[in-house]
Parts: sequence; C-alpha cells; structure tokens
Amino acid sequence: MLQLKGIIPPMITPLKNSDRLDREGLANLIEHMIRGGVHGIFILGTNGEAPSLSRSLKKELVRTAGKQIKQRVPFLVGISDTSLSVSLDMADNAKENGADAVVVTPPYYYPLDQKEVYEYYAALASKLPLPFFIYNIPSHTKIHLSIETVRKIKDLGALGIKDSSGDLFYFYALMDALKEAPDFSFITGTELFLPETVMNGGHGAVAGGANVFPQLFVSLYEASVKKDLDSISILRKNMLDLYNSLYRVGKHPSRITAGIKCALSVMGICDDYMAPPLQKLTGDERSQVELIIKNITLNPGAGS
Amino acid sequence: MLQLKGIIPPMITPLKNSDRLDREGLANLIEHMIRGGVHGIFILGTNGEAPSLSRSLKKELVRTAGKQIKQRVPFLVGISDTSLSVSLDMADNAKENGADAVVVTPPYYYPLDQKEVYEYYAALASKLPLPFFIYNIPSHTKIHLSIETVRKIKDLGALGIKDSSGDLFYFYALMDALKEAPDFSFITGTELFLPETVMNGGHGAVAGGANVFPQLFVSLYEASVKKDLDSISILRKNMLDLYNSLYRVGKHPSRITAGIKCALSVMGICDDYMAPPLQKLTGDERSQVELIIKNITLNPGAGS
Amino acid sequence: MLQLKGIIPPMITPLKNSDRLDREGLANLIEHMIRGGVHGIFILGTNGEAPSLSRSLKKELVRTAGKQIKQRVPFLVGISDTSLSVSLDMADNAKENGADAVVVTPPYYYPLDQKEVYEYYAALASKLPLPFFIYNIPSHTKIHLSIETVRKIKDLGALGIKDSSGDLFYFYALMDALKEAPDFSFITGTELFLPETVMNGGHGAVAGGANVFPQLFVSLYEASVKKDLDSISILRKNMLDLYNSLYRVGKHPSRITAGIKCALSVMGICDDYMAPPLQKLTGDERSQVELIIKNITLNPGAGS
Amino acid sequence: MLQLKGIIPPMITPLKNSDRLDREGLANLIEHMIRGGVHGIFILGTNGEAPSLSRSLKKELVRTAGKQIKQRVPFLVGISDTSLSVSLDMADNAKENGADAVVVTPPYYYPLDQKEVYEYYAALASKLPLPFFIYNIPSHTKIHLSIETVRKIKDLGALGIKDSSGDLFYFYALMDALKEAPDFSFITGTELFLPETVMNGGHGAVAGGANVFPQLFVSLYEASVKKDLDSISILRKNMLDLYNSLYRVGKHPSRITAGIKCALSVMGICDDYMAPPLQKLTGDERSQVELIIKNITLNPGAGS
Repeated sequence: MLQLKGIIPPMITPLKNSDRLDREGLANLIEHMIRGGVHGIFILGTNGEAPSLSRSLKKELVRTAGKQIKQRVPFLVGISDTSLSVSLDMADNAKENGADAVVVTPPYYYPLDQKEVYEYYAALASKLPLPFFIYNIPSHTKIHLSIETVRKIKDLGALGIKDSSGDLFYFYALMDALKEAPDFSFITGTELFLPETVMNGGHGAVAGGANVFPQLFVSLYEASVKKDLDSISILRKNMLDLYNSLYRVGKHPSRITAGIKCALSVMGICDDYMAPPLQKLTGDERSQVELIIKNITLNPGAGS
Repeated sequence: MLQLKGIIPPMITPLKNSDRLDREGLANLIEHMIRGGVHGIFILGTNGEAPSLSRSLKKELVRTAGKQIKQRVPFLVGISDTSLSVSLDMADNAKENGADAVVVTPPYYYPLDQKEVYEYYAALASKLPLPFFIYNIPSHTKIHLSIETVRKIKDLGALGIKDSSGDLFYFYALMDALKEAPDFSFITGTELFLPETVMNGGHGAVAGGANVFPQLFVSLYEASVKKDLDSISILRKNMLDLYNSLYRVGKHPSRITAGIKCALSVMGICDDYMAPPLQKLTGDERSQVELIIKNITLNPGAGS
Repeated sequence: MLQLKGIIPPMITPLKNSDRLDREGLANLIEHMIRGGVHGIFILGTNGEAPSLSRSLKKELVRTAGKQIKQRVPFLVGISDTSLSVSLDMADNAKENGADAVVVTPPYYYPLDQKEVYEYYAALASKLPLPFFIYNIPSHTKIHLSIETVRKIKDLGALGIKDSSGDLFYFYALMDALKEAPDFSFITGTELFLPETVMNGGHGAVAGGANVFPQLFVSLYEASVKKDLDSISILRKNMLDLYNSLYRVGKHPSRITAGIKCALSVMGICDDYMAPPLQKLTGDERSQVELIIKNITLNPGAGS
Repeated sequence: MLQLKGIIPPMITPLKNSDRLDREGLANLIEHMIRGGVHGIFILGTNGEAPSLSRSLKKELVRTAGKQIKQRVPFLVGISDTSLSVSLDMADNAKENGADAVVVTPPYYYPLDQKEVYEYYAALASKLPLPFFIYNIPSHTKIHLSIETVRKIKDLGALGIKDSSGDLFYFYALMDALKEAPDFSFITGTELFLPETVMNGGHGAVAGGANVFPQLFVSLYEASVKKDLDSISILRKNMLDLYNSLYRVGKHPSRITAGIKCALSVMGICDDYMAPPLQKLTGDERSQVELIIKNITLNPGAGS
C-alpha cells in the first residue's frame, strides 16, 4: 500500500493561456522537481489552479504529466469538484494515466454539515478506481473537517490527509486522535510546519515552495526525520526568507502561488500565465521577483 | 432591452438520479409555474443544484427547458462556475437554446479581492453572447460584492443583480447608490424581502417558494407594486407560514431546497431526487411535508 | 406597565474629557431631543460610550440626566457590563435616579453559548430593581441571541428587545415567533429599518441619528404608524442622505457615532470629545461635517 | 529589566462566591504553583475571570496575592478593561501591591482598527506606573494585533507579548519579524505550543494547566530549553492526555477553565466557584474530574 511521506510539491500548472498547456515548461518543471529529490508530485490542487481549468485541459495535463513522471515518484491527482460525477470521471482518467492516488476536498459550493460531507466521501469512495487522500482546506471550501469526520473517512479507506487548515493545534489533535492507525499519512499543507509535523508523528508536506526550491524542502524534511535541530534551524531560516521576500510580492490573496509561478518563469523553467480569476505578477512585481531569485542564487544556501 | 421584474422562480432541477433528468417532471414544473403567473424562469442556480451536475446534464436541461418554455416568459440560465472557459461554453449553449440572459456569480473556490472579481466579470462580459445578471451570494461564494464593484460591473453591461446576501441594509444602500440607472434590475434572492424590495425601488424576487406556490408570490408581488398594504400583510403571513413549516423540515443547511423538492414530489409534479452532496427528505421528514401540503391545500389562502 | 414605542435616541455622552461630563452640553442635548418629540431617551448604550467610561462618571451621568429629563419621557439606562455585580450596582443607581427601565446586553468578553447567556439573564433578572430590555448587538458582544433564547428571556420578565443585529430576516422571524406577546416591545437598533419594523408589528427605533435630527425620525415614525407611504418615501430619502454624508465622514469603524457627536458640536449643542479607544473627528473631517450641517439647515427637509 | 520566560500560570481566581475570595484557597494555590517551580504568576487574566469580577474584589485579590507571593517570582497583573481610566486605576493598585508588570489586551467592546488599538496602547503606556505586556486574544477581544501593530507597541516600551491567538503561523512570523529585539519576550498562551515556542526563539508559556500541574509544564519548558527531544516527546504526551481528559469535561466554551478549577477543588487546593457568566462543573462532570485526577495521581508521570 502506498504510504506517502516526504516532500510532495503541489505542482503549479504551466500554461500558455487559459486553454493551452505549456508542455515544454511542464516537462522542465517535473524534471526540476524530481532532480531536487521530491518524494511525490501532486497535480491539480489549489496551487495547480484546477478549479479554473476546463476538464479537457485537466485531462491533457494528467496524461502529459503521467508520461513525464514515468512512475519515478508517486503521482497524485486532484479530482476535487462540486460534482461527484465529474470527480469520478477525473478519477478514471487519473487511473488510466498512471496515477497512484487521487486527492479530494469536500465539494465547495454548498454550505454542508459534517454528516453530508462524510456521506459525500462515502459515495465517492465506493466508486473510486484508485486510493484517495483527504484534502482539508477550509479557507477555500468553507468546510473544516472535524476530527471525527476524518476518522470516519479514514475508515472508508483514505490513505491519509493533507491538512491546509493552517491550524496546527487541530493537526496535532488529529494526529493524536488517529495515532493508532500507523499507515495513515499526515501531510501538512502549511510548509512552515514541516518540522513540527514530522517530529510529532506526521509524514511530510505538500509544500508549494518545492516547485521552485525542491532541495531546500527535501533537506528540511530529512533534517526533520533525523531530528537534527541545528540543520532544521538553518534551513528553516532559509524558508522564512521566502516568506519575507518571494511570498510577499503582489497584492492579491493568491500572491504566493503567483510568486512561485513568476519565480519559475524568471528561472526559465516554465511560463507564468495564470488562468482567471487569478493573475500573474507583472511589471514592478516581476522585477522584484527577478531580484529575489538573483540574490538567492548568489546565496546558495536557500536554493541548495 | 430585457428588464427583469416580478417573480422569477429559481427552478429546482427535477432529477431521476445524478445523471438523469426527470423530463416529465420538468415539463410539469415549468407548466405549473407559468400557470401560476411567474414573470420569468431561472434555471441552474443554487436551488437548481447546478454545481452538483455534470456539464452534459446541464446542457440537456437547458435544451429541454428552453423547448418547454417556448419564449412564453423570460428564460434565464445560470452559468456560474469556477472556470471562465466552462462558463463561456455554458453561455453559448444557453444562447443556442433560446435563453434571454445568463446569471453569474463570482468564481467560488479561491478567496478573491474585489479587483480580481471585477476583472473576472470584465473578461467574461467581453465574450458573452447574451446579456448577463450579477448574482451575489456570499454564503456560497465567500465573496460579498461591494457597492463599488457592482457599479463597475453594471458599467460592463450587466442588466441587473440578484442579491442573495440576506443583508437588506446592503441592498437598500445598493439601490440608493445606483438609483440613477433606471434600467438596472434589483432582484432580491431573499423572498421574505419581496415587498421591501418592490416598495423601495427594486423590481422583484428570485423566490424559491415560487416553485411550489407561484401564485402566492405573484400575488404578493402585485400587491407590492400597488402598495396595497392590507393584501401585503395577509400574503406575507402566508409566506411566513412556509418559513414556519415547509422550510423548517429537515436538518441540513440545504433544508429549504429539500423541502421545496419534497413538496413538489408530494404534489405529484416531479421527482425529488437530490444530487450529492445534498440529500432529499425521507421517512418522517417526508411525512411532515405531506401533512403541511395537505393542510395548505385545505386552506386555500396559502396556495392561492 | 411601560411599553416602549416610537423614537428613543441612544444618547451620546457629552464629555469635556475622559473623566468629566459636559454638563451644559448634556442639558442642551436632552432639551434638543425632547423638543424634537422623542418618545424616550436611552443613555449609556453603545453610542453613549458606556464601556469606555468609569463607573463614577456613568453614575454622575445617570443622576444628571435623570434630573434634566424629569420624567417627561421614559428614561432608559444601559447597565451592560462583563460583571454581573457591576451591572446590578448600576441598576440600583438607575432606579435611585428615576430610570424607568434598564437595558442590558449579554456580557461581552467570554465566548458564551445560548444556555450560559440565558442563565446570566436569569441571575440578573432575579435581582434587578427595575424592568429590563434585552439588547442584541452581536457585532460588539460576539453573541447572537437565538429566537429561543429571546423567548426564554422574555419569560423572565423582559419588556422588549432592542435588536442591533442589522439582520432584518432575524428580526422579522423574531417578531413572528413572539407575536402572541402583545406587550413585548420590538425596537430596531438599525434606524434604516424603522418603517419596516413599525409596519410589521414592531414598535420603534433606537435611532442614533435622532440625537441630531430628532424630528426627522419622529416624523418617519409617525408616517410609519399611519402607513403613509408617500411621507415615508420622502423622509426615508432624507435619512439616506445622512448615510451618504454625515455617516460617511471619518475612517474608523465608529465613524457614525463620531459623525453624530461632531454634528452636535458644530450645531453648538455639546462638546464632541470621545473617550479612548474612540476618536473624535478633527481637521478636514470636521470641516466636512460643518458643510453637511450647513446644507441640511438650508434644506429644511432633513432637519424637519 | 524584567525579561519574562518559563512557565507563568494564568492563575484562576479562587472564589467563595461572586463577591468573596477564597483567601485560604488562594494561599494554597500560590504555594502549590511556586512549589511546582513556576517562573512567574499572572493574575486577573482570562482564566482568572477578571472581566466577571468587581473592581474592589480584583483589588483585594491583587493585595492578597502580592502578600502571598512576596517577590519570590515575578508577579504580573492583568489590567485589561474597556475603559482606559479603569485600567490605569488597576495599574496603580498593581504597583502599590508589588506587581512587577501589568498585562493588557486591547479594549474589547468596540470593533476597532489597528490604528485605534495602537493609539489606545500609546495613551495607556504614557501613564502606566509599571512595565507592560501585550496580550493578544482575538477570540475574546475580536481584535487580532497585526505584526506591524505589535512592533509599534513594542516601541512604546512593551516588555513582551502573550499570544493566545492559537495561530502558530502568526506567532512564528511575529518572532521572525521582531527578532532584532533580544529583550522582547514571546510568550505563548497556547500551552500545547510551548516546545515550538521555546525552540524557535520564544521564551515560555502562560499555561493554564500549570495551575494544576506546575511541574509538568516546568519540566516541559526545561526540556524545550535543552532541546531534549526525548523528554519533550514524553512530557508532551502527558500534556495531550490533559486535552483528552480534563479539558474535555463539560460542555460550555469555557470548559477548560472550569476543568482546571474543578481539578483544584478535587485536589483540596481551593474552591471552584465560577462567577457569572461562567459555570463550574457539577454532578457527573465533577465525578469525571475526580476519576481523572485519581488516575493521574496513580500515574506519577503526568503530575510530576
């Protein structure tokens, strides 16, 4: 059984425009991340702009990425949607293209109670052709999965949870509550909490920054596994530098994703087009990113 | 130019199951509403479970409903989605099938600021084949359109706004702020506020209850236009009875829609299946609805 | 038994500084409001800056205001506090100084559930020397009194409720739920909803603007009682002008209260000092208020 | 200059009833905590029910606690109030009774913006007779102090911040932003985050559980200072046991404080009366606490 651990970047989706993949950029990006030592790749999540893309484009992405990854690392595909039948169709497509597992949030339009959410997962799980991960991201779905609901969804066969609540108190409580399930993966979606997660029973991070600096996050993961506090302290400082520079450019709520895409473009890896409603960085903002990337490259610590 | 007014039911979608329309029920329901005097029909909104349905099913619904309505009343189609290209495809389909206008919320996954929302509408408006209505429903989209944003979207050519914020203070302020635009329609999505809306410069209501009791809402609209306070008082009491009975059955956040679907099923008009994640009323809850409908029928006031 | 109705201004507190009343301004203001025809005066509410004042200053205000009002109109005193024993002490003082009733919010520091809130009112009611009004203002107390809780507090002997939730849907539902209690007063704290309140079974408004323009609000109340829609329409327009001018000066969340105090100062009625943490309007903002007041005076409609 | 660090229990207030201290219990409790090795004592905070108590009772508590503590550990007094003049009076009283510093939240009734909050602290700081700590607890005050506001209040002379936001992401960002100020104390109000705080540049915890089990928290603090991960892991497990037992008894939002008071009563240390609006545990809930305390005593790990 697949047990996820380590650094799994939530891959941004390289786009030429709203209807066209940047296929060359996609290949570059996948190679960049694998070369950086990542332990898996997760496409079509929040960073991947999945909700903004048409289904045909998403399927093309799954197919192309699957061919590029070629089973070298676990391949996870987001199938979250507001429609169960659309999610199932995306899951079938993921399976056909070599995905190891799918990742799924609760449906995100209607306000739902925990019972409805559980039953949604139950209906889904009974028809999925692949194992699945739970994805908790209340800032986007409006629904915070209770510990009891996660436990029940785990019993439906979930392999683990990616928690992007940003609420470490909840995540600790969740790990404590489900500690009797040794094969269940606890993956934080808040990269800043990677050491806390790994040193307290969790398994890794879906780290957006690992699109750009995979080695930094892989090193931090390894230091966390070894409980090497000195290395953690240094690498953590490098990570905080990202929060104080790259992640702070731009003025929209999605500026972290935009900064990551812009950095990849500056580094020549892929295009930085963003599909509506999100917007890429331009003008002065791009110039700031250029400067940031240049300085980080001169200072090999951060990119190492 | 289409100026919307009066009672426009947000039609529930009659379903056999998640992938199949109840076509006979759909015909029944449309005839029931038109016979009741409604001033338009709005399909594929929140009550219509649009986010839960596959695109092919939605297109089939548009086609079938358009044929049934046959231009007898204005025909509005919801095209809200998280993807601009999907919304545009749905808009083209709406036009092909005789829709008079489309209705569109902001995209509802990413947290967005007002500028991003405006630019999304701008990108959409430039490519829409039909006039559009703004749909404000922050409880579902997480985004409350500011008065300034509504003004700017109006200037993109919007025909009006359907406001389901439930915040009458905001709606009054909005009507006051845009009062210089006599052709812009202000439609409340909170049916309880129909008289307030119509007597203070607004034009009508997207009233979920008008699926079941179209005449009640049409009468209340007409009394509001005439400022006939005595009739308003009586009809309003009938409406409040719905809040105290039909709308209170069930225990999930979507219970009003479920109650409406159940009532239509009890009345023999259409099936009451609900697509995941929503759930239809069953067992005791259905029995309660049966009793409510029976009592209302015995008391012709409410259904009149 | 006191049944409150009509216009009850939530009196601002005229202050020389944080520790000293503007006694002359207080007398002026009370006379200004009574001359304007108000149906009661409510001191030490949210507009009255009660939470910002020391207990001795509040007692001095009660004593001085009581002497000035001299039973000419019902006299209500806010006793809200986070401490039950402080509230009871303030209630005793209110009684000694001729108050007709006290007004009380839930305690506003701890997050509380409905049961705790109810039991707080029960403990309070059993010891109060005067009848009391419930004051619902969730934006400040963090607690929204449920309809069921209001019903139970009513049964403890409450004379009525002042609802400042701004949620007319809730207020309508509340009036509908408690309509069997003909002596219970429903008073809106959202002055814009005065006509809606009075025409749908409610009794009046605690209208901040009535500090400045008591006649405007009294006229609107009277027109609402008579259901004189033409007058309502005209007077409502005058009220909306306040929202678009006086209430919009300043940039802090408390700008409406600051605008009211500033207007009274510009009109020569009382000082406009505000106790920390609130801040009075100064400089350009005061100049804007001067212009607004001058224009309103030239246009006798608004101040009538 | 006082630099706070280590374990500073937010002392519960032993009460006979709403108007009377449990003076013997107070002495017992202070000795219990000092014997347990705490590095300071903070009275009249949220756990101390300060907002529920009359000012005279609070002053009596300060006087009595000061005499008992006798400078053996730093003595901190909460002076938070909605009124600046009341806070200043409490600060004077704290100084007279030997307090080392005061602790103050923003005023908690009016919604305030960051500028108003800063200016409130500025007005306060200029008149305080003692050094002060900032207390951030948005769940109770409705106000989340921004990093920029904290920086500016630090420059007014604040000794440090107690952060009870529960948001470790914010707290890490705050510590990173102010890392150039080596004397500023970062104290978490979320006891679960004690190791994270101390190992990432912070100084200690205001730990409610240290009222009952001071040694447990002191040991965890010392292990965190030494970065002794094995001990941290064991002690942390003991702390999580509290979350899964003592902190889970009761059904109101204040159940953690109620559980702590009940445990102290069960242990014979002090009375467990709670002032309105909070309620003590009784009946079955008390029996559960008795069992929990008995089991913990049998298992010396937790109480050590």
